[in-house]
Amino acid sequence: MSIEEAVSQLSTLPYEDLGFAKPDHHRALRTGFPEVILGEGKTAEQVLSIASKLAAQAHRLLVTRVDPSCFAQMKEQLPEAVYHPLARAITINRLSHLPSRPGIMVVSGGTADLPVVEEAVVTAELMGNVVDRAYDVGVAGIHRLLDHLPQLRRARVVVVVAGMEGALPSVIGGLVAAPVIAVPTSQGYGASFGGLAPLLAMLNSCAAGVSVVNIDNGFGAGYIAALINSIGEAGEDGEEQVQP
Amino acid sequence: MSIEEAVSQLSTLPYEDLGFAKPDHHRALRTGFPEVILGEGKTAEQVLSIASKLAAQAHRLLVTRVDPSCFAQMKEQLPEAVYHPLARAITINRLSHLPSRPGIMVVSGGTADLPVVEEAVVTAELMGNVVDRAYDVGVAGIHRLLDHLPQLRRARVVVVVAGMEGALPSVIGGLVAAPVIAVPTSQGYGASFGGLAPLLAMLNSCAAGVSVVNIDNGFGAGYIAALINSIGEAGEDGEEQVQP
Amino acid sequence: MSIEEAVSQLSTLPYEDLGFAKPDHHRALRTGFPEVILGEGKTAEQVLSIASKLAAQAHRLLVTRVDPSCFAQMKEQLPEAVYHPLARAITINRLSHLPSRPGIMVVSGGTADLPVVEEAVVTAELMGNVVDRAYDVGVAGIHRLLDHLPQLRRARVVVVVAGMEGALPSVIGGLVAAPVIAVPTSQGYGASFGGLAPLLAMLNSCAAGVSVVNIDNGFGAGYIAALINSIGEAGEDGEEQVQP
Amino acid sequence: MSIEEAVSQLSTLPYEDLGFAKPDHHRALRTGFPEVILGEGKTAEQVLSIASKLAAQAHRLLVTRVDPSCFAQMKEQLPEAVYHPLARAITINRLSHLPSRPGIMVVSGGTADLPVVEEAVVTAELMGNVVDRAYDVGVAGIHRLLDHLPQLRRARVVVVVAGMEGALPSVIGGLVAAPVIAVPTSQGYGASFGGLAPLLAMLNSCAAGVSVVNIDNGFGAGYIAALINSIGEAGEDGEEQVQP
Amino acid sequence: MSIEEAVSQLSTLPYEDLGFAKPDHHRALRTGFPEVILGEGKTAEQVLSIASKLAAQAHRLLVTRVDPSCFAQMKEQLPEAVYHPLARAITINRLSHLPSRPGIMVVSGGTADLPVVEEAVVTAELMGNVVDRAYDVGVAGIHRLLDHLPQLRRARVVVVVAGMEGALPSVIGGLVAAPVIAVPTSQGYGASFGGLAPLLAMLNSCAAGVSVVNIDNGFGAGYIAALINSIGEAGEDGEEQVQP
Amino acid sequence: MSIEEAVSQLSTLPYEDLGFAKPDHHRALRTGFPEVILGEGKTAEQVLSIASKLAAQAHRLLVTRVDPSCFAQMKEQLPEAVYHPLARAITINRLSHLPSRPGIMVVSGGTADLPVVEEAVVTAELMGNVVDRAYDVGVAGIHRLLDHLPQLRRARVVVVVAGMEGALPSVIGGLVAAPVIAVPTSQGYGASFGGLAPLLAMLNSCAAGVSVVNIDNGFGAGYIAALINSIGEAGEDGEEQVQP
Amino acid sequence: MSIEEAVSQLSTLPYEDLGFAKPDHHRALRTGFPEVILGEGKTAEQVLSIASKLAAQAHRLLVTRVDPSCFAQMKEQLPEAVYHPLARAITINRLSHLPSRPGIMVVSGGTADLPVVEEAVVTAELMGNVVDRAYDVGVAGIHRLLDHLPQLRRARVVVVVAGMEGALPSVIGGLVAAPVIAVPTSQGYGASFGGLAPLLAMLNSCAAGVSVVNIDNGFGAGYIAALINSIGEAGEDGEEQVQP
Amino acid sequence: MSIEEAVSQLSTLPYEDLGFAKPDHHRALRTGFPEVILGEGKTAEQVLSIASKLAAQAHRLLVTRVDPSCFAQMKEQLPEAVYHPLARAITINRLSHLPSRPGIMVVSGGTADLPVVEEAVVTAELMGNVVDRAYDVGVAGIHRLLDHLPQLRRARVVVVVAGMEGALPSVIGGLVAAPVIAVPTSQGYGASFGGLAPLLAMLNSCAAGVSVVNIDNGFGAGYIAALINSIGEAGEDGEEQVQP
Repeated sequence: MSIEEAVSQLSTLPYEDLGFAKPDHHRALRTGFPEVILGEGKTAEQVLSIASKLAAQAHRLLVTRVDPSCFAQMKEQLPEAVYHPLARAITINRLSHLPSRPGIMVVSGGTADLPVVEEAVVTAELMGNVVDRAYDVGVAGIHRLLDHLPQLRRARVVVVVAGMEGALPSVIGGLVAAPVIAVPTSQGYGASFGGLAPLLAMLNSCAAGVSVVNIDNGFGAGYIAALINSIGEAGEDGEEQVQP
Repeated sequence: MSIEEAVSQLSTLPYEDLGFAKPDHHRALRTGFPEVILGEGKTAEQVLSIASKLAAQAHRLLVTRVDPSCFAQMKEQLPEAVYHPLARAITINRLSHLPSRPGIMVVSGGTADLPVVEEAVVTAELMGNVVDRAYDVGVAGIHRLLDHLPQLRRARVVVVVAGMEGALPSVIGGLVAAPVIAVPTSQGYGASFGGLAPLLAMLNSCAAGVSVVNIDNGFGAGYIAALINSIGEAGEDGEEQVQP
Repeated sequence: MSIEEAVSQLSTLPYEDLGFAKPDHHRALRTGFPEVILGEGKTAEQVLSIASKLAAQAHRLLVTRVDPSCFAQMKEQLPEAVYHPLARAITINRLSHLPSRPGIMVVSGGTADLPVVEEAVVTAELMGNVVDRAYDVGVAGIHRLLDHLPQLRRARVVVVVAGMEGALPSVIGGLVAAPVIAVPTSQGYGASFGGLAPLLAMLNSCAAGVSVVNIDNGFGAGYIAALINSIGEAGEDGEEQVQP
Repeated sequence: MSIEEAVSQLSTLPYEDLGFAKPDHHRALRTGFPEVILGEGKTAEQVLSIASKLAAQAHRLLVTRVDPSCFAQMKEQLPEAVYHPLARAITINRLSHLPSRPGIMVVSGGTADLPVVEEAVVTAELMGNVVDRAYDVGVAGIHRLLDHLPQLRRARVVVVVAGMEGALPSVIGGLVAAPVIAVPTSQGYGASFGGLAPLLAMLNSCAAGVSVVNIDNGFGAGYIAALINSIGEAGEDGEEQVQP
Repeated sequence: MSIEEAVSQLSTLPYEDLGFAKPDHHRALRTGFPEVILGEGKTAEQVLSIASKLAAQAHRLLVTRVDPSCFAQMKEQLPEAVYHPLARAITINRLSHLPSRPGIMVVSGGTADLPVVEEAVVTAELMGNVVDRAYDVGVAGIHRLLDHLPQLRRARVVVVVAGMEGALPSVIGGLVAAPVIAVPTSQGYGASFGGLAPLLAMLNSCAAGVSVVNIDNGFGAGYIAALINSIGEAGEDGEEQVQP
Repeated sequence: MSIEEAVSQLSTLPYEDLGFAKPDHHRALRTGFPEVILGEGKTAEQVLSIASKLAAQAHRLLVTRVDPSCFAQMKEQLPEAVYHPLARAITINRLSHLPSRPGIMVVSGGTADLPVVEEAVVTAELMGNVVDRAYDVGVAGIHRLLDHLPQLRRARVVVVVAGMEGALPSVIGGLVAAPVIAVPTSQGYGASFGGLAPLLAMLNSCAAGVSVVNIDNGFGAGYIAALINSIGEAGEDGEEQVQP
Repeated sequence: MSIEEAVSQLSTLPYEDLGFAKPDHHRALRTGFPEVILGEGKTAEQVLSIASKLAAQAHRLLVTRVDPSCFAQMKEQLPEAVYHPLARAITINRLSHLPSRPGIMVVSGGTADLPVVEEAVVTAELMGNVVDRAYDVGVAGIHRLLDHLPQLRRARVVVVVAGMEGALPSVIGGLVAAPVIAVPTSQGYGASFGGLAPLLAMLNSCAAGVSVVNIDNGFGAGYIAALINSIGEAGEDGEEQVQP
Repeated sequence: MSIEEAVSQLSTLPYEDLGFAKPDHHRALRTGFPEVILGEGKTAEQVLSIASKLAAQAHRLLVTRVDPSCFAQMKEQLPEAVYHPLARAITINRLSHLPSRPGIMVVSGGTADLPVVEEAVVTAELMGNVVDRAYDVGVAGIHRLLDHLPQLRRARVVVVVAGMEGALPSVIGGLVAAPVIAVPTSQGYGASFGGLAPLLAMLNSCAAGVSVVNIDNGFGAGYIAALINSIGEAGEDGEEQVQP
């Protein structure tokens, strides 16, 4: 059997061809969650078109980095869509019995990190999790963090969002046994260089157990936390079926 | 014979001196295609003035990175000019029997890369090629790419446009025998650093056969693909004469 | 109660003061695994001194980035120490009933990444895991990777090690539902800039579910994978007690 | 048919599993040339083992960035192996009627670029090409370059190797109609930053028709030039069969 | 006593939980000055809310990088607030007997550095200091600097603000016995790279006694200068009490 | 005599203290030309105030990087001021017998470099030079440059302005015996990184005789060219006197 | 009085001209401590020659970054010289009544930072200080740091040395009222980029009161700490006289 | 006349083709000085071969960045060759009446910059200049520099060599009317990043009249200084003839 034949069979996997985009209906089966739309860099028309195709076949939808005007247009076609202004995200959730899995804690260094934090929270919640939180517990006032230590130690996975010097994941990584997902933010100025400073700091963490996602990538952190938190669970998240 | 004498003879090669610019009428003879105008950084008046001089002596004209207001002015002087809004390019094509050479395929990783893709397509088409396409076949849903493998393997040269991590050229480079022209885009955020991430990735491709152009340089990729695709062709592209 | 009083109580937590170092005996309780020694930048005498203190109170010991001559000295004091030459690591494991937890898969892009891969494997094994492996399955010959897809989809967490353009985590991230820990390596030359190219690529992965550790940090990836893989487990890893 | 089934069929494609490496015997069919071994980062034993597997099934073999001591070991097992000391490459060529295709010209800016140049030449020759050359024609003495203009204009593809400021590809790109493959080298010091200076210069070339490979990647440039030069050819390169 | 118990005691330290922020009332006790609000990245509502909580318990308040519209809102709630337009800072000072400690001199290289300079001055003054000044004494006209040498030599600590090449701290560092706090600014263009040039220059100062803060961080420099200038003082700064 | 005494004498050198600025009237005596005002980063009021002080004591005035609205205000106070819109510069020249020294040639790579070119020309002209010019002679059409070779070889100093890959100074440096002042511009996109690409290229020029100024620093290049061109001249430039 | 006259008087300040070097005997008067020799980049002969000139006129001598072989030569000429192998420094101290000023604390993140730490300690001690210390108190085991809080709060100035992510100065800066001098070290690998990661982190510290010196610059930190610690002291350091 | 004909005439300009190199005998005519050999990156055999060809037709020879063993071989063939160990340069000078033109001053910041300084001096002397010098006059002891002000003000061109923060050219640029050629050196450590710090500082000099060459490029600075110093001279440098 030649590679051409094998590949032609792979091509029967369900995706749709809109010309400018190819919504991947099969992704929910492969990875447990439908394709997520990154709104940035796409026109409102493109977002809308992709979203309506995905929403036609999946129970849940997530669009990130999208502004309110795009949401206004989507609301007309998909009235169940919800906009999260701080996170700049749109969600749809049609699962009637959403599992409410505890285990994720999201921690942030400062108030200015909130949009990134909220993107992580919206993502993790849509994926069936109840999210515990502690905001503005940066290392310059470390007693505020220590005050949340019992919560931190109960978490199965911790998302830590921080800009400036990005020290918080290292401190937390040394206090807990759970894996830490570190999210550098572009908060800061001068030698922050758009978030390079906390990014490098987090990659060089002296605490074992810390892995890192892109600058300002709250979505990625929430997504990974949800994947980790679903390990060892018997139940399903509900996106098990794709309607061809 | 001194270098001054030799050089004075070289100076008889046709170009025009507008003071602020020197349209190079001889380029079509040397390189097979007339001088292309990079609109960015030039005033509309400068673009117009250069374009009208070039259009007076060549069958084809290409202006890249130019906005609609500049086109509106040009349309008055050069009514045959066409604007490609997605590519932000202006073209003129007076060749009556445009060759329609197959062989170029343009592939893109995501929907947000479309403006760069279209610049490549507009360029290659103006240079006499029929362009095969596959958009939004990024590596996160690799079956979408594999579905286009037969097309890919028919191509004589493949242009691959991708932002984010820029992985697509490596995957395609390992699947085809044709040369791959990789175009990193500035799509992405944070540690993309304006396209640095996919640029470095493409330069380090583990697949042989991949060469790279500047970030967002769809024009360059389309141009090189056209040069490669014309190799071994008996016919001419039609720009053989410069009218002095 | 003042902060001075509170802190004086914290100081009763067990650690030892060697002057140049303070082995942290309490870490096993806080994070589930004893302190790990980074050999690089320390003299053999320092490594030895810290190791013997830690080994006196814990069941397991891990030293990374350490050369054979240091191991030779340690072997005399701690005869149960084992050297892993490819990984450049020393381990001691006194747990009689080591749990053998499946669920971790380690994948590498090329042969030259092996030292980093082995550091991840040695770490994960010492932490009680049986590690599944697929080496040299880089994206330039993607059928080699697809051949391991059944294994990949069985894994609860996947460690992906790659140098050059660092594309492998994105491809795998789009194929599996498990979290992916990506490890960029310094393998490559020129515009790899010591591993910067794959690091940036992995941070910009278009596949959700990918988080990243430092360049060449096999230890960190193996450690995080072990943390994740132990989630939802009833049993203990065996390091539950610190003997004061 | 599920993706698992389709992929299991893909897995019948021939490759060998040495544990630490997976020589890809099918690559010659897919891409027209057998897998090439990058010697750097591999032990001599690893290179030897992979080379003997590949040489058992293909007519040609190429190992790059490999030192003489590794070659000495290989010579015992594969007596037909040839070492190219300047290029630091090993080749085997068993094709009796090697096609001798003209069309590639390799140009270099300075004497110190020779090792990179020779890697390009060795690669292109093994792939069936006769290579035309012009060395040390850097832009500081541009008459030396102009002296080779007739040769340059005959070429179907030009490889240009340059360190320092990397200006040569732009000058040549403006003089010829053939595609130019630019290779920046790490020759230079100070603000060359290991070849970053010519790399950036080549990516920003004001001449259309220039694409770029990694710093010092003579192999890549020679390989791409050979791919381009074989376009439109009726004959075959001779690697058409893989003996299972 | 477990770490959980110790930490629960630490948590009695006074801070307030606004959800999105946790004003740290205890900081004045720990560090001698109340928490300072970085306005950048926060909404006006967030700044206002935090400011009113802090102002309820401390004698002084400092908000940096805040625009006039935010101040207009704050003025309504906190009528004693003062806006410093050049420094873009808000201050409140309720200490009746503000100490007027001499010893700090602030020097700037050019007129364009003034906003950063003023941020340093406003900070140091609020912390009880009388600030001596010499503006626009850049090294291109070094007699202007030398003219201020007597003042410079009287200072106990010198803040030096400079953009462009950042040479001023080195020259001053060689002339005085006082510690020099160097502040690079983003003034400049091109290869200044947003202040990277003076930042690196100041870090590499050949004069001993120079330490550096972030680009444009006038606040940080003024704060450190005030800390240094209060060394050896018998009197108090007045923020000794936190009203729970 | 102590350093304090010596320095107090230096302080009698004439400069004025405006508080926010210290116009350096003595500079004309030290360096042959009055202090030049960099408009960028200063308010219109500051520019005006400094300009009127300098203009009160010198025959010539130069303000760079200043916008038309600032000029409009200045025109009221200093009616002889002239605005150069392309160069974004203001000049005053009261020298009745301006020397007209030939010897400087300014060359540019492309039309988009014109603002930088004009800043160099305005500067050199104000300093008493007649400037020869050749614009848009980039290396992609090198015959346009060779056409100006006789002019180039007559020049005593050549200013070369180029963006993109910055190759032009190297080509010219190999053709002439005069020193070349290279000015990289921020023209370009993607991997130009704001002019970093041509800056590095020019610093690595393989032609001896090339020195470099900051990105877009036309003023600096024109100034240095004027300094060089005045070497060996008997006459004076006319700024010999400062009226105290 | 002309600038030439004023400057000729400045030239009477004592320094010596060795041709290749100009030891600055006056520096002790200006800055309170004799010139310090940076050994790196100088030949042993140069170090020796400068050292003997300085030692002839000052009570104390400090040479940094110097290897044992250079010390061996110096010992013959200057028998009172002492070598500090860990710090790689040479000192001479002839002051009979060395002041023993408490107030400086030096803290380090890890054992591998010791050479930098010791350079700081040797410097501060030679300048008359008794140095309090806490080594290996990195943030991954923060109770080790908290254990030293009473010491930390007694310090008048704190030097914090850390590699990896450089988080320690921020944590300490939030706990103490003393100024913190942060020293990033090159300890680490991969994305540490030679100490860039902790350098950027420290510059972006969210704790006020932190200023930064060059990577690995223990000398600079010790020197600044000594300057700060001597503020408000009545007594003298003993280097008050230069013997002409 | 076609470009091919014109170019064939250019090809009669004298250069020699050694295969690996093309010594450019015509350069002395075009640029006033024979081709200079950069030794770095070339084998001793290559250097020797090029040198003997150049020395056969020119009165002077310069080889830079070459080690003593290469010189030892050259001495046998070209006994008049002289080695300058500090500068690592080889020179030959057969001009009997070497002009001794005053006007160049070379200034250095520190002793460790001497190799770069000497390369500049050797170059300028070979080109007919008497070089005035002031070494180790860095800005930390600025009276040492001021002491040389009379010399500085007599110079027609000043070469300033400095590592560390690279502040010296700015200070000198503000004191003299002559053009300043700034040479950053790689002396320094940490955030010097191989000379990047002084390079950026010099490019951003606030003093007009400063242009910059590559890091450690003493040769380039000496060469440019000689070009500038020969402006306005009636006499010739003696390399007027090339013997074909």
